[in-house]
Amino acid sequence: MSRSAMNLPLGFRFSAAYAGIRKVPKDDLALIVSDRPATAAAVFTQNRVVAAPVELSRKNLRGSRGQARAILVNAGNANCATRTGERVALECARAAAKALGVHAAQILPASTGVIGVEMDAGLVINALPKLVVGLDASRFDEVARAIMTTDTRSKTAFAEIKTGRIVARIAGMAKGSGMIQPRMATTLGFVVTDARVPVALLRSALQRAIARSFNRISVDGDTSTNDMVAVLANGASGVKPPAKAFERALTDVLESLARQIANDGEGARKLVTIEVEGASSERAAETIARTIANSPLVKTAIAGSDPNWGRILSAAGNAGVIFDPRQTDIDMQGVPVCRRGLAAPFSEDELKKKLDEHECLIRFTIRGRGRGRVRFWTCDFTEEYIRINASYRT
Amino acid sequence: MSRSAMNLPLGFRFSAAYAGIRKVPKDDLALIVSDRPATAAAVFTQNRVVAAPVELSRKNLRGSRGQARAILVNAGNANCATRTGERVALECARAAAKALGVHAAQILPASTGVIGVEMDAGLVINALPKLVVGLDASRFDEVARAIMTTDTRSKTAFAEIKTGRIVARIAGMAKGSGMIQPRMATTLGFVVTDARVPVALLRSALQRAIARSFNRISVDGDTSTNDMVAVLANGASGVKPPAKAFERALTDVLESLARQIANDGEGARKLVTIEVEGASSERAAETIARTIANSPLVKTAIAGSDPNWGRILSAAGNAGVIFDPRQTDIDMQGVPVCRRGLAAPFSEDELKKKLDEHECLIRFTIRGRGRGRVRFWTCDFTEEYIRINASYRT
Repeated sequence: MSRSAMNLPLGFRFSAAYAGIRKVPKDDLALIVSDRPATAAAVFTQNRVVAAPVELSRKNLRGSRGQARAILVNAGNANCATRTGERVALECARAAAKALGVHAAQILPASTGVIGVEMDAGLVINALPKLVVGLDASRFDEVARAIMTTDTRSKTAFAEIKTGRIVARIAGMAKGSGMIQPRMATTLGFVVTDARVPVALLRSALQRAIARSFNRISVDGDTSTNDMVAVLANGASGVKPPAKAFERALTDVLESLARQIANDGEGARKLVTIEVEGASSERAAETIARTIANSPLVKTAIAGSDPNWGRILSAAGNAGVIFDPRQTDIDMQGVPVCRRGLAAPFSEDELKKKLDEHECLIRFTIRGRGRGRVRFWTCDFTEEYIRINASYRT
Repeated sequence: MSRSAMNLPLGFRFSAAYAGIRKVPKDDLALIVSDRPATAAAVFTQNRVVAAPVELSRKNLRGSRGQARAILVNAGNANCATRTGERVALECARAAAKALGVHAAQILPASTGVIGVEMDAGLVINALPKLVVGLDASRFDEVARAIMTTDTRSKTAFAEIKTGRIVARIAGMAKGSGMIQPRMATTLGFVVTDARVPVALLRSALQRAIARSFNRISVDGDTSTNDMVAVLANGASGVKPPAKAFERALTDVLESLARQIANDGEGARKLVTIEVEGASSERAAETIARTIANSPLVKTAIAGSDPNWGRILSAAGNAGVIFDPRQTDIDMQGVPVCRRGLAAPFSEDELKKKLDEHECLIRFTIRGRGRGRVRFWTCDFTEEYIRINASYRT
């Protein structure tokens, strides 16, 4: 299962182990280490309730002026709304820094799991020696699996940036299946690249790439307290790519990860792409798409392969965005189902069959001169989502 | 099953019949008639997509300057996003006016059911004679049943206003089970009273009563295209109650109906009351309560009797309202589960048992001087909701 280190960015090593944070004996602690100082940028949750590791990562990035050597991440406990949260995050980061021989401010901690349960720093500290010994350039996929919670699949994505004859590589991983409506940030996502990228460019490229990827997915409309995406650029390839080329490659990687998250939404059987065109602005288009994506009635109709376009139109009407329903067209799976706000003739049986496919496309077009357009991803809403979440904690 | 006409407001008659709009032979058309002109007020959906009967009711209320004689309502077809919608609504209202010998502008039409399917005015017009013949002061409950769609129970509520020795009565009915997050209005609700209420007072009392009742429930966060609550006051009791007494009685009736709707949410097994206290304003409190009420993660936890207060805190953190999580307390079923943003000690087993009860209370308190407080109602989120909605249309 391990990816050849040949295709991964140079100068990064990875390691995962079971530290006893999860109840089940499955890797729950991981390290991503850059062999040299890397420029680093991250985006964080906009939830008012913020987990301790998120606060510390933010602080460390400020303290190091955008430099990092390692990401320390655990699953099984969010370390959020805990009495000892700050101290635990700090102790774990310090122990990792010591074990790696780097500054404590160069460690970015991240956590995911249950909220409100005290976390035992000892478990992390005890597991660190094993973790450090295990560091290897080829263990990328093991880390991607260690950060999974209710995910059914690990999520990874890769890109290359060619500059003349030399190549820089980007590799990303993410986790996330429920509590997914990243806002300005998301779930956990880690991206490493051996391109040489100044920190100011890294930050702005990440902001723009996130806006078009993680901020355009929703599984259930809930934004986690622990969302974080971090990117580390260590320059080991010697390539300093043009800003636009780097941003494009980073966006490709993040968009792929975001789609994989929507596709692996809790209980989901289908990946739903929503395209909105002709809105008054990109923001208006995104708001319409998000409202459709979060409508339980739309998502259950997709689960039932029901071409119920009335629910799509009604959901859009609730977006708080001004548009004329009489100038609105809707297509499902390429089939016109609504023209100028009214039913278009279509074969219900044929469309139902098309909606049984794994990927569903909803196209919402407002006629006229509006130039706001957006693509947004979500999943269908099945009984399995309820089963997973009625018993996740206990 | 019929309620004695003795307990109903004087001077109103009711009738229901099967007109063939639904596929199943169950009453789908109803009339509520005041024997004398009644003052009337109504609130309507804030969805940008608005059904034809909603537009016509709004227009008629304007045209009649707040006078009405009858409400004509059908289930089985929303008459929304239909080519012939306006004409159908107008023809039906005109036919009802003719059959009752009143002005067309004195009819308030309302519809509920599937969106985007053309409605046959002939079915309504053909059924009108039967409907008018059947008008009777005792058939209130039959109308309440005729307007049901996925509802499992009809919803009615009653109040009295005593002024000296004479009594005015208020009787209300509502329908609604899915696509429920009324905003400024709601689902279908009809209230009749034999109190004498000037139209300006009726309007303002309805606005305020709706804000504290229908606007504080959510089943699934979707706002329908056909939402409407109308109140008719015909003065037949001779009582002209004090404004405050009338508003209080009207609020009681609407709050009871709103709770019944949340309680009968699609697939719901539990009624959830959310009390928020200590927010910076009533609006802030309502936003927090609504965000908790719409969180699928909170609602599935309640379905599983899981005291997962971390999800409640996380949901509140997404409300877009400023508050300090470290000053936040959460109680479930009267049991402290979170104090100052941290876990409070409680017996998981005992609380799980308490959460198996039909009514669940979540109390979210922000310490300090904030005076914003609110009560909000929702229901749990079960696999049955998915089953109902994956196949509603076809």
